[in-house]
Amino acid sequence: MIAEKIGFLGLGSMGAPMARNLLNSGLAVTVYNRTRTHAETLSLDGAEIADTPAGAIVEGGIAITMLAHDAALEAVTLGPDGILEKLGKGGLHISMSTVSPETSKKLAALHAANGSLFLSAPVFGRPEAAAAKKLWICQSGSGEAKQRAEAILDILGQGIHDFGDDPGAANVVKLSGNFMILAAIESMAEAQALAEKNGIDRAALASFFGQTIFSCPIYQNYGRTLAERAYEPAGFKLALGMKDVRLVRDVAEAAMVAMPLADLLHARLLTSLAKKRGNLDWTAIELVTAEDAALRSMTAAN
Amino acid sequence: MIAEKIGFLGLGSMGAPMARNLLNSGLAVTVYNRTRTHAETLSLDGAEIADTPAGAIVEGGIAITMLAHDAALEAVTLGPDGILEKLGKGGLHISMSTVSPETSKKLAALHAANGSLFLSAPVFGRPEAAAAKKLWICQSGSGEAKQRAEAILDILGQGIHDFGDDPGAANVVKLSGNFMILAAIESMAEAQALAEKNGIDRAALASFFGQTIFSCPIYQNYGRTLAERAYEPAGFKLALGMKDVRLVRDVAEAAMVAMPLADLLHARLLTSLAKKRGNLDWTAIELVTAEDAALRSMTAAN
Amino acid sequence: MIAEKIGFLGLGSMGAPMARNLLNSGLAVTVYNRTRTHAETLSLDGAEIADTPAGAIVEGGIAITMLAHDAALEAVTLGPDGILEKLGKGGLHISMSTVSPETSKKLAALHAANGSLFLSAPVFGRPEAAAAKKLWICQSGSGEAKQRAEAILDILGQGIHDFGDDPGAANVVKLSGNFMILAAIESMAEAQALAEKNGIDRAALASFFGQTIFSCPIYQNYGRTLAERAYEPAGFKLALGMKDVRLVRDVAEAAMVAMPLADLLHARLLTSLAKKRGNLDWTAIELVTAEDAALRSMTAAN
Amino acid sequence: MIAEKIGFLGLGSMGAPMARNLLNSGLAVTVYNRTRTHAETLSLDGAEIADTPAGAIVEGGIAITMLAHDAALEAVTLGPDGILEKLGKGGLHISMSTVSPETSKKLAALHAANGSLFLSAPVFGRPEAAAAKKLWICQSGSGEAKQRAEAILDILGQGIHDFGDDPGAANVVKLSGNFMILAAIESMAEAQALAEKNGIDRAALASFFGQTIFSCPIYQNYGRTLAERAYEPAGFKLALGMKDVRLVRDVAEAAMVAMPLADLLHARLLTSLAKKRGNLDWTAIELVTAEDAALRSMTAAN
Repeated sequence: MIAEKIGFLGLGSMGAPMARNLLNSGLAVTVYNRTRTHAETLSLDGAEIADTPAGAIVEGGIAITMLAHDAALEAVTLGPDGILEKLGKGGLHISMSTVSPETSKKLAALHAANGSLFLSAPVFGRPEAAAAKKLWICQSGSGEAKQRAEAILDILGQGIHDFGDDPGAANVVKLSGNFMILAAIESMAEAQALAEKNGIDRAALASFFGQTIFSCPIYQNYGRTLAERAYEPAGFKLALGMKDVRLVRDVAEAAMVAMPLADLLHARLLTSLAKKRGNLDWTAIELVTAEDAALRSMTAAN
Repeated sequence: MIAEKIGFLGLGSMGAPMARNLLNSGLAVTVYNRTRTHAETLSLDGAEIADTPAGAIVEGGIAITMLAHDAALEAVTLGPDGILEKLGKGGLHISMSTVSPETSKKLAALHAANGSLFLSAPVFGRPEAAAAKKLWICQSGSGEAKQRAEAILDILGQGIHDFGDDPGAANVVKLSGNFMILAAIESMAEAQALAEKNGIDRAALASFFGQTIFSCPIYQNYGRTLAERAYEPAGFKLALGMKDVRLVRDVAEAAMVAMPLADLLHARLLTSLAKKRGNLDWTAIELVTAEDAALRSMTAAN
Repeated sequence: MIAEKIGFLGLGSMGAPMARNLLNSGLAVTVYNRTRTHAETLSLDGAEIADTPAGAIVEGGIAITMLAHDAALEAVTLGPDGILEKLGKGGLHISMSTVSPETSKKLAALHAANGSLFLSAPVFGRPEAAAAKKLWICQSGSGEAKQRAEAILDILGQGIHDFGDDPGAANVVKLSGNFMILAAIESMAEAQALAEKNGIDRAALASFFGQTIFSCPIYQNYGRTLAERAYEPAGFKLALGMKDVRLVRDVAEAAMVAMPLADLLHARLLTSLAKKRGNLDWTAIELVTAEDAALRSMTAAN
Repeated sequence: MIAEKIGFLGLGSMGAPMARNLLNSGLAVTVYNRTRTHAETLSLDGAEIADTPAGAIVEGGIAITMLAHDAALEAVTLGPDGILEKLGKGGLHISMSTVSPETSKKLAALHAANGSLFLSAPVFGRPEAAAAKKLWICQSGSGEAKQRAEAILDILGQGIHDFGDDPGAANVVKLSGNFMILAAIESMAEAQALAEKNGIDRAALASFFGQTIFSCPIYQNYGRTLAERAYEPAGFKLALGMKDVRLVRDVAEAAMVAMPLADLLHARLLTSLAKKRGNLDWTAIELVTAEDAALRSMTAAN
């Protein structure tokens, strides 16, 4: 049994079910969200609600953050009433947001200077997976931080994969994965456009590949989404996908790795944003391919 | 039991195990290969050997072709001693090569004019899968052709997926699949380069994704191949991959579908050919990304 | 004074003014065009009209071809009533169309086998330049052919630039030039989109660069065309531009030169054709950039 | 005659000849450079030397900045002993560096709050052009600032082009221009590779286009540089070109304009940096194309 006091910060579509799972496992969790209403729904599950980031944690306790971007993570950590100082000696910050490796390295150093631990532990999985405790977690940081976080991460996901000591490493893995997912989406979008123009049913194509050489969830689920253009409601918003590809490009530039496929994906996302599709699911980058090909299914649909 | 006389034309790394499986199932198979020595190894399995394409088949019988490219398929079908006329009334040509949809449409029309049937039935799977009868087969053509081919295709593969009447449709599906596989390879190559430059083990990255969000053979096997740069011996030669992407671009141009990702893959392949890597496995397009990033693992390896 | 009998084949928007210039210089010219009406307008200028390609030339005389593509050039040269055999011993074929180097090499060999000369002499310049004798001519082929063609080419253009003996070389130069022009168009299109979104007048931007660092006709004229979106009537049809970029890609693939910029231009053209813009000027590839950026000027214009 | 006291900050390869021209025109100029030795060479031309940015200017006077990047401009303006406060009421800051439009807008607002004027006036031209007073200047900002700067800019360049009130506009024009120059370089690099592989002399190709359809300095000078691979000494360092394309991409992302050609150029630059070519001239991006094509001229040269 985990006796530690946990503060959970960030209750979006991912954070809320994750916090709920901790509560349902019998843990004492205080939650914080910038928009307080999102926090209140968790009080039914037994959460205490804090009005500030620092209010959600205790000295020497554990803070879990699951926020939309680097700026939000920095705000709750370093901003007024942030967790950095309050966490103090003996504390642990488990950072699960998709952020840049630079931010992780910076926060790890600042926490160390304050006597607390920092673990980078971003996740793969949509909100349904978060609710079902089926997240895939990749982690990196100090061994001490990993040991202390283990029981908590075991509750949240179906597997923890370790990427060493560098607190930025897990973030690079997470960004690589989102890049690969979006690359798979683009490849399916182009293939489906080619098929449609040649009289082949998009759904039949997706189904075939999902049953055979690409029999994994990414191709099965996104393949169907693309065939049906089921872009609303968004499982993962296109605008957030842009944020991630932007981070991929930043990391690639810093590391001097030319990634032309990442550039293509960025162009798809940027065109989608110019066309005001930021709130659609990120699979909606497909519409650019479809419009460029003047697909008949587009005319029919609109 | 299939009583029909079968001529099998094309005994490369795919055709040979396929013909062997038919022989081992008790079928009467006459084989033909341009280089006769490849045919002779099959005589141990009970194959009769023909010196010409036409010599491998009987009037009204079945011809199965598994050749390297459109020109070879046209040569055995339409060339001197080709199968077109000999097959004549009541014959069936099962075309399993990766060729253009245009060639399939043309051959289907010519066979029809000669009173015989044509089925387009390209396959997914490497030589090991062919040997293990684990090929995935996609087919398109007339219902009559499909009915007659079914028992034979059931021997060769683990599943037949139908894409309708248009004899070119199955070829478009096959080309789309090879495009998607190569796109997955490129995405893994870029991700592994990014990871390596950030101090992450390439094999660890590949293993993580193969166990989690990309838990399908394409990512598992190719991910490992890429991490280890195990490009020899080639499972599928890069030069053949170029042929396929060239066909993808031809179909895309005819259908007016801009496919920037296919263009990127073509550029990778073309650079690889300029660097004399045509006999390596097609995963070796990764070397372009690695060289562009000046990866340390490249210097170490070379 | 040129005493030779000249047959001029191909009276499109380029060929017609070129033939007229030869007639106005006092030369004896017989013209041929597949659509005879185009030929008839030249009879006012003193042209004789032929009903077949061969009918336009005399044995040992000169044939000038200015046709839309490789197939048309092959048809008038090698087809029924073609010029190849009739030209015979001592003849000269000046090929001025934009075609592939392979076609030039093939025709040069066939003419040589028939005892006649072949000169590849494609041109740069729009119809107005053709009318004003301001074409830029690049040539390649045998010295003998060049010597004999010189006086004629001097009438048609403002300068002849030599690229050696290989009959395909001049075609590669011509294709390179059209590639570079279209690349300049794409760069202006992207720059103008960026400028417009930042509140800068497109025409002002084009004017500035045309007066300063890019003070040459390509940037001056096309820059203005792009700023005004004056895509009709077409100076050079987008569909013909596609033909040229296709040839560039064929030559690049044969030579194993990855040309990602050529691929980008091809994608722009293909999208434009899918959107039925083949009859607009080739500068109209700009509309893809404008649509992708959701430029306000697009909404205003449509 | 300009009676005002001028402080000139930034004496790199561009700033030094510009400051010298002002001195030679009889103006009173105090110079500042972070590395003082660069400033000292100008004392022979009559310059006074300051030890701090603020030391180079007088209250209500004129500051001209010509620095390597946004950070340097911000440092001399906003940093310790920066010019912002000292310039005070009635001062004018003429900002001639290649920086982001955002930085210009920010500085313009800060100067306005201090009662001084700000003019964005970036330039086109290499060091030789700066020395010869042949720079092309594009400006944007308030009318008052332009009026006061006019006599000074007239000394430095051969023409002033106005882009309105927005202080960021001139920066967007400057960035667009550098993007277009690099795009022209890439198009020449690909064309020359294609030509070389087809047996055509690179220099002959460059010369032809420079004399005909691309008869402007960019194509003439860079075309020759590329044909000869004369990348040292650098006229404009590749690493600085990367800085500019990075700014182009930032502006494009903010404005939501997909610029695939800018992405291609960025990939070329990034690969070049990974290969440690940052100190070569930016035309050296050509080496990536040459290596990818395995050009014989590369082997010969290295």
